Amino acid sequence: MTTSFYPPQRTLMGPGPSDVHPRVLAALSRPTIGHLDPEFIRMMDEVKQMLQYAFKTESPLTMPISAPGSAGMEACFVNLVEPGDKVIVCQNGVFGGRMKENVERFGGTAIMVEDDWGKPVDPAKVKAAFAAHSDVKILAFVHAETSTGVLSDAKTLCQIAQHHGALTIVDTVTSLGGSELDVDGWGVDAVYSGTQKCLSCPPGISPISFNQRAIEVIEKRQTKTPSWFLDQKLVMGYWGGGAKRAYHHTAPVNALYAFHESLVMLEEEGLENAWARHRHHHNALRDGLEAMGIGFLVEEPYRLPQLNSVFVPEGIDEAEVRSRLLADYSLEIGAGLGALAGKVWRIGLMGAACNKKNVLLCLSALENTLSAMGADIPTGKAIAAAQAVYNAN
Amino acid sequence: MTTSFYPPQRTLMGPGPSDVHPRVLAALSRPTIGHLDPEFIRMMDEVKQMLQYAFKTESPLTMPISAPGSAGMEACFVNLVEPGDKVIVCQNGVFGGRMKENVERFGGTAIMVEDDWGKPVDPAKVKAAFAAHSDVKILAFVHAETSTGVLSDAKTLCQIAQHHGALTIVDTVTSLGGSELDVDGWGVDAVYSGTQKCLSCPPGISPISFNQRAIEVIEKRQTKTPSWFLDQKLVMGYWGGGAKRAYHHTAPVNALYAFHESLVMLEEEGLENAWARHRHHHNALRDGLEAMGIGFLVEEPYRLPQLNSVFVPEGIDEAEVRSRLLADYSLEIGAGLGALAGKVWRIGLMGAACNKKNVLLCLSALENTLSAMGADIPTGKAIAAAQAVYNAN
Repeated sequence: MTTSFYPPQRTLMGPGPSDVHPRVLAALSRPTIGHLDPEFIRMMDEVKQMLQYAFKTESPLTMPISAPGSAGMEACFVNLVEPGDKVIVCQNGVFGGRMKENVERFGGTAIMVEDDWGKPVDPAKVKAAFAAHSDVKILAFVHAETSTGVLSDAKTLCQIAQHHGALTIVDTVTSLGGSELDVDGWGVDAVYSGTQKCLSCPPGISPISFNQRAIEVIEKRQTKTPSWFLDQKLVMGYWGGGAKRAYHHTAPVNALYAFHESLVMLEEEGLENAWARHRHHHNALRDGLEAMGIGFLVEEPYRLPQLNSVFVPEGIDEAEVRSRLLADYSLEIGAGLGALAGKVWRIGLMGAACNKKNVLLCLSALENTLSAMGADIPTGKAIAAAQAVYNAN
Repeated sequence: MTTSFYPPQRTLMGPGPSDVHPRVLAALSRPTIGHLDPEFIRMMDEVKQMLQYAFKTESPLTMPISAPGSAGMEACFVNLVEPGDKVIVCQNGVFGGRMKENVERFGGTAIMVEDDWGKPVDPAKVKAAFAAHSDVKILAFVHAETSTGVLSDAKTLCQIAQHHGALTIVDTVTSLGGSELDVDGWGVDAVYSGTQKCLSCPPGISPISFNQRAIEVIEKRQTKTPSWFLDQKLVMGYWGGGAKRAYHHTAPVNALYAFHESLVMLEEEGLENAWARHRHHHNALRDGLEAMGIGFLVEEPYRLPQLNSVFVPEGIDEAEVRSRLLADYSLEIGAGLGALAGKVWRIGLMGAACNKKNVLLCLSALENTLSAMGADIPTGKAIAAAQAVYNAN
């Protein structure tokens, strides 16, 4: 007979999920009510409004998809791409590759713009791709690459797309709530994100938003969207219908309680303050890591404060370090992916997990573990370097 | 500033979600851990094993999809249907119509077998459809129609499909855990379900299973599955990979804690005992409703014990009754759908909500409300009729 599962109490400083705040966990376990209950519908309206605030958009087609971020990505592509469409896809990490898969599975042609993992998307290459191809319908790129910790210049990339009359699909899974994002100001046409990064909600739902230009493209489709579950024309009837909501699917009631609470907390803190908090603790972590002799994969201007890709010291088995951190400190940090596997760690400072306590724990645990494993690193300096950042503020 | 959301405490006796047991809500709010954490992977293995028990299958490709039941349906169709395929779709309620949408969106041809809403799928019509069409690849039908409360004879329908060399896709959203279901014994090839019905878990994930025949068909596809998120070849690498799981998407960690706990509770009760419990309380509710002069839409042999479609008494505004039940008793029952809107209610007795307390509350509340609204019904007999069923056991 199987017994109940009691998870260990971790500190989550990997690429997500991040630590979930106790207020959000408490909301998650409130009694389930019907997905058509008037009280639930009122809550859905609040979720939409707060999500508009988080994305900085006034678009009414702003809502959480009832599935994880990869379904949010698919919701954007499956609704906007039709067979034969040309899409410029920027790839500088794992998720650009997934975008290519999406374009091709829905019958489009992906024109790839590639940059090295750890580098931002190069606007000059995007301009060149537009110059080389006519009738490009969409430019798709990742704002904050979770696989490398790189921030790309979404504002400039959107301007290039607009200049060529193309729509934009932007992945903000790791940026929403952690780095500046201005969906309406930058003219992002379709955007998706996740809940388990800087919003510190459990994984499972995916916030998205389409603006009027994107809605018009969806409404003028020549072919039926090759998905029933993600067809925005149907989802709109459910999330956008006010009192006359058309039943589409059963919303994940409790997951939406949690998401609501995490958005309430974001409103309370203020979006700009949340961005500044991520930057502040990143600075402390950075100074501590550098004092330990650990360097960053990404050049300073393109670093995501909420996701720090740092090099594993020479001769150290990185998986062994992660195992020890988990066993000795119940601390999770992330491994490198693809070509970076074995070479970097990804240290997250996301949402509720982005705080002084975690920065100090991570530095102390990493220094002690690396020393015990015989790494040739300076010791006794990391904590002081981090505290110096805190003391200066 | 938006404030935290505190849902009312309802009694959920609609078509789902059903009341979630406090043990399941408690599991839901345990601390989030990483989706690649060794402890989480151990829990995933337990979920798979317990789900095999619930479905009565030994197939290793048995797992929860990270999205609601309608995505579970889509996972079956998008993986098994290729352009040009012929699929016999049985429609006797809302969900058969959704299956047709699925078939057509993935380029297949749906051959419709229609029965009246409130009637089971007629095996003779299915035989006739196979006789009239060669090269049918799949037979798809709903085992337990949530829109009407009808149980169809899945065993017989699967035999017909096997006789013609066709695969079966069976919707068991409302039957799993509430009515006899024997996936391997009946030879169901692809099955999907929901968590928010007789398993009494919050909505948001969808258990599915594919057997070896279905897996072979997926592996031999000529075209790429037109979905990345639901591509079972990729999902298999994540859920089936043991220690070497390939990252596909971020699993909904806390939703899976809850699902795990609901499956532990099902194991503790025993599958057959759970089916018997649903039958037992249905009998009490039925005798109580009939003593009130309220009749059933569905003939006795085809009635789902867990979903009771009953006629609204003459001259009564059914929506007003539901509003009063919600306001005066915090009790939710369901409305009729489609052609049955305004004519029937759907009273659920699902999972944790299927108990004596709820049967008595529902009968008492309904009788009092109908009397107050001037319905011409016998009073003072319903509770006694239900108690007689309980006293006899």
